[in-house]
Amino acid sequence: MNKRLKSTSFLIRLTLSVILTACFAVRSLAESAGGRPNIILILADDMGWGDTGYNGNTVQKTPFLDKMAAEGIRFDRFYSASTVCAPTRASIMTGQNGARLGISHWGSSHVQASDILISEFLKGKGYATGHFGKWHLGLLDKEGTHDFITGPRKPGKDFSPPWQNGFDVCFSTENVAPTWDPMKLPDQGSWGQKKRYETGLWGNNYWNQKGKMIDHNDNLSGDDSRIIMDRVIPFVKEQANEPNPFFAYVCFHTPHTPTVSGGKYLEMYDGHAGRHHYGAITAMDEQIGRLRQTLRELGEDENTLIWFCSDNGAAENKSDKFGDYGGFGSNGPYRDWKGSMYEGGIRVPSLLFYPKVFKKHEVIDMPCNTADMFPTLAALLGDPDAERSQPQDGISILPALNGEMTVRNSPMGFAYSQNAAWMTERYKLVVGIGGNKAKPELYDMIEDPYEKRDIADQHPEQVAEMKAALGKWIQSCNESCGDRYKPVPMPN
Amino acid sequence: MNKRLKSTSFLIRLTLSVILTACFAVRSLAESAGGRPNIILILADDMGWGDTGYNGNTVQKTPFLDKMAAEGIRFDRFYSASTVCAPTRASIMTGQNGARLGISHWGSSHVQASDILISEFLKGKGYATGHFGKWHLGLLDKEGTHDFITGPRKPGKDFSPPWQNGFDVCFSTENVAPTWDPMKLPDQGSWGQKKRYETGLWGNNYWNQKGKMIDHNDNLSGDDSRIIMDRVIPFVKEQANEPNPFFAYVCFHTPHTPTVSGGKYLEMYDGHAGRHHYGAITAMDEQIGRLRQTLRELGEDENTLIWFCSDNGAAENKSDKFGDYGGFGSNGPYRDWKGSMYEGGIRVPSLLFYPKVFKKHEVIDMPCNTADMFPTLAALLGDPDAERSQPQDGISILPALNGEMTVRNSPMGFAYSQNAAWMTERYKLVVGIGGNKAKPELYDMIEDPYEKRDIADQHPEQVAEMKAALGKWIQSCNESCGDRYKPVPMPN
Repeated sequence: MNKRLKSTSFLIRLTLSVILTACFAVRSLAESAGGRPNIILILADDMGWGDTGYNGNTVQKTPFLDKMAAEGIRFDRFYSASTVCAPTRASIMTGQNGARLGISHWGSSHVQASDILISEFLKGKGYATGHFGKWHLGLLDKEGTHDFITGPRKPGKDFSPPWQNGFDVCFSTENVAPTWDPMKLPDQGSWGQKKRYETGLWGNNYWNQKGKMIDHNDNLSGDDSRIIMDRVIPFVKEQANEPNPFFAYVCFHTPHTPTVSGGKYLEMYDGHAGRHHYGAITAMDEQIGRLRQTLRELGEDENTLIWFCSDNGAAENKSDKFGDYGGFGSNGPYRDWKGSMYEGGIRVPSLLFYPKVFKKHEVIDMPCNTADMFPTLAALLGDPDAERSQPQDGISILPALNGEMTVRNSPMGFAYSQNAAWMTERYKLVVGIGGNKAKPELYDMIEDPYEKRDIADQHPEQVAEMKAALGKWIQSCNESCGDRYKPVPMPN
Repeated sequence: MNKRLKSTSFLIRLTLSVILTACFAVRSLAESAGGRPNIILILADDMGWGDTGYNGNTVQKTPFLDKMAAEGIRFDRFYSASTVCAPTRASIMTGQNGARLGISHWGSSHVQASDILISEFLKGKGYATGHFGKWHLGLLDKEGTHDFITGPRKPGKDFSPPWQNGFDVCFSTENVAPTWDPMKLPDQGSWGQKKRYETGLWGNNYWNQKGKMIDHNDNLSGDDSRIIMDRVIPFVKEQANEPNPFFAYVCFHTPHTPTVSGGKYLEMYDGHAGRHHYGAITAMDEQIGRLRQTLRELGEDENTLIWFCSDNGAAENKSDKFGDYGGFGSNGPYRDWKGSMYEGGIRVPSLLFYPKVFKKHEVIDMPCNTADMFPTLAALLGDPDAERSQPQDGISILPALNGEMTVRNSPMGFAYSQNAAWMTERYKLVVGIGGNKAKPELYDMIEDPYEKRDIADQHPEQVAEMKAALGKWIQSCNESCGDRYKPVPMPN
């Protein structure tokens, strides 16, 4: 589909959406058990399954997440739609796999005007919307001649800030930042980019909704999670006085490298090689606790839905390059790291907390993923058929939250770099794509969740069937993507 | 030390032991909180950490173990003293590492008259003693010219049956057996030994305390765990009427290969590649439940101490050779398999249940191992200084059971084939020995229980210190062993 056609199609869909929304507005609100809750999506960056106390880490302290895990809904088999950050973020925003949007990679492309984002959907429902932290779905500096990751760039290329994507209030960065003193170049590690060493600045700036860069002297020192939450809290407080609900999309930079901590958080973990990592996560956890405390004080706790997850698994330690800030994350028992199709790359912690509707602690072990978030929230708001970019990869898991669905019948596709995977409730196929000619592997995720026993040789028909389904899905992604980015290669 | 000297030394020790026992008999009984409980040690064979429901296996049903785990003491960091079977069994019996006894390997040597076994200790305390199942610490057929594992042998070599090692009642085999119809050669798999294929018999016979082979028609068909328990139950019932307590050492062949199941146990797991494995474990679990039910009916439940564990981690699947009976065990999240120094080889499920004294559910995460069992039981009987073969490798973990000890200050050594390990509360050093010139690896067992991050390069002093301690321990083992078996090589 070319851009013009896509754009026309979008207009038709938008018009339909407006009409349908108008027709069913009363009904949809009535249908919703909880009315319109405030919605807060909280995203950690490169936080692994094993990086929380509640998932068995005995060193890492996360008392506030642990409490939410014990009281709310804990997902035990929740996946990031990609094994790296930007595509997962794209899936949260759209319900589509990043590959459909040309966002297959951590450094590729951006969301476009024709993509339908959850922020736009919620804005259409009257929500006040705010984005806080790492955006990673487009660049923020329209005039900028320098991308701090890829170096020199053409001004305007990949410009697509949250304030052009449905967010009223922004305190946003393009990409990763040191998790302590985020404006400064860390005092350890080799971080490339000559410019950083000339200026002593990291280069990932915060921007507001007016497209204005935040002054480095305006409360940008110390723990980055606190810096972000210092902007979330006033937004929440202000919106609590308004008749309409709010949507806050809170994207911590923690614990992605450079993982730096300081003060009491660092002291807590004295003697541990990973003390900066542990400290940064504990600091982030504390900010989540602070947010919940604020909601309680405002009387908004019951009517606020918080959905927490990570954008991919923990990255393998890179102390050789980054010293103490080199990432000491844990995927717990799961195999491999960020960037991999094995569970360690994609199985992430996730919690949902919405006391008004989900009154009891639940554990969901059905496979779910970040692309399910938009469809699920739409269903929860009584508008399951809300207009979204098509085809959707996510499904509404509302029935699972209500205890009416325990098996996922809709398989999940993953593709990144030279690997792809296709996962059903029970099986996972891992294949090489492009230059990776590795032989397909098959795992029984129920019997062998740690992927220790490749059973492809024993199940050639299962392998063939899943490989065909994966190929079909990749083809479909490439059709959606069109010329936005290079196509995903087919399975070998 | 030559055999004669050793034997003399044993007599001196025995005499001393008798005198000391006589002197302190009243005091030791009074000291013991529980008096003299019945003691049942239950050993599974090649059962991995992940082979129980309570350790997170969602396929494997072990309701009776799960119940014990929920009610009694669950060990979360319990090790077999070796990564293979015979040495671990030696450690249970003596409190020493198998390497001290020349039992470094699954096929090497036997316990000797001079070794002090827990069965002898308990017999000295007035216990009636019974061994049921796999012995593996010496051969049982004095006249036999054929070892069913190693083939032709010299009659009398390695003869050391349980009835010469402190057991009054025996229903014992030398080694592994199919877990269903244990006398028969399984109908799948390639099991070597021409003789088996000529006779259709597996060749691992049951023997009684008179040194008489049990007739194959005498209740030796069907599930092997039931076959064993059919002999344990009458022993328990008979002893329950006697004034003295009993000691039953119950050594299931389950789930070691050939892992065969049948009947309802097999049906339960229809559709699973590992159905024989799952079925055999569920059948064993049921027999443990049956034993506990018998104890309750006899009014002996409160005053019986049950200690359950496995002799090493699950073995890697060998379906290519053994078909459906090839072992489908799980070490859960832990790395590697039986035979390895990584956690999968040695971290095993273990439970202790003794309601009269340990009234509440407890979880012990201090590292413990099978060599601790004898010293702990001696301490529990109020006789912590009971004569044992020296030097001991195990320690009494009674203070841990009483909540007075949370850190193990006594490191644990492991050696098998071409690998050795030295483990403290926090660190584990894995080294190559003999022909294995691999570079030493160091793991932080608290921060990295799944051994994903070798930190040897970052801690050269720790590595050097632990390597020296391991070397010293190996030297000490070799001194104890003398000419009983070839020495364990020093760390490379």
